[in-house]
Amino acid sequence: MWQEKESKLYKAFEFKDFISAFSFMTRVALLAEKSNHHPTWTNTYNKVEIWLSTHDAGDKVTEKDRLLADEIDALNTN
Amino acid sequence: MWQEKESKLYKAFEFKDFISAFSFMTRVALLAEKSNHHPTWTNTYNKVEIWLSTHDAGDKVTEKDRLLADEIDALNTN
Amino acid sequence: MWQEKESKLYKAFEFKDFISAFSFMTRVALLAEKSNHHPTWTNTYNKVEIWLSTHDAGDKVTEKDRLLADEIDALNTN
Amino acid sequence: MWQEKESKLYKAFEFKDFISAFSFMTRVALLAEKSNHHPTWTNTYNKVEIWLSTHDAGDKVTEKDRLLADEIDALNTN
Repeated sequence: MWQEKESKLYKAFEFKDFISAFSFMTRVALLAEKSNHHPTWTNTYNKVEIWLSTHDAGDKVTEKDRLLADEIDALNTN
Repeated sequence: MWQEKESKLYKAFEFKDFISAFSFMTRVALLAEKSNHHPTWTNTYNKVEIWLSTHDAGDKVTEKDRLLADEIDALNTN
Repeated sequence: MWQEKESKLYKAFEFKDFISAFSFMTRVALLAEKSNHHPTWTNTYNKVEIWLSTHDAGDKVTEKDRLLADEIDALNTN
Repeated sequence: MWQEKESKLYKAFEFKDFISAFSFMTRVALLAEKSNHHPTWTNTYNKVEIWLSTHDAGDKVTEKDRLLADEIDALNTN
């Protein structure tokens, strides 16, 4: 579940190991570059945290963020 | 199933799309660099073909190739 | 220099090691997914070969291929 | 220059764009997995921040962190 906090969508992900986490990050990177909408994200080993907000809209959560959030969620079901 | 042909282990993989295929390639790249044993591989959109052989052993299939093949197969079950 | 052969643009790249080669491949993957135009490519350790053609145009070289070729060349100057 | 703060080595990197930043992250990921020593890192578009510490040593900066820091610095000269 994505949570909205401090004008950002936030979600934490946990994987088996670093290889799985970084592979997920590569998928997100491809999606983000494709839609020209990029996350702020942090990784430590098997953990990835993602924050989404729209800079052009004054760092608020917009439809672009909800769309990317949905696309990221869809990755894990492939 | 990996097949042995022309002194190489060979397997073809097919994914949903390019993002899934390249994410798989990133996992294989991390495994390969970690074990210092690198594939010859080809990608077109959602298809990846991998050939494994051991150059130091005169381009034959060795235990190093069978190990990497097993590790690659294990990736897809994560 | 990209060469046109068998109705494809072709170029071979050589890097210092696998890490440099795969990092280059990641850049190309991001470009390719962004433009929704994907290469056929092969990698062995520090070598990458790329073939570009346009499937929708009957596997011919089109402006889309020349554009992606130019973008790939521009990557190496960053 | 890496700075030591709060028992971590810290450095901020800035790139031309997201593609360059994520390509750098892929190189760091390959190094990190190879040495089985992983960073905490954050990325937003063209910016990457990296923190290195050794969990097994009680989250202190050790020789493993200095080595990975040196390897990361060496990446940018390729």
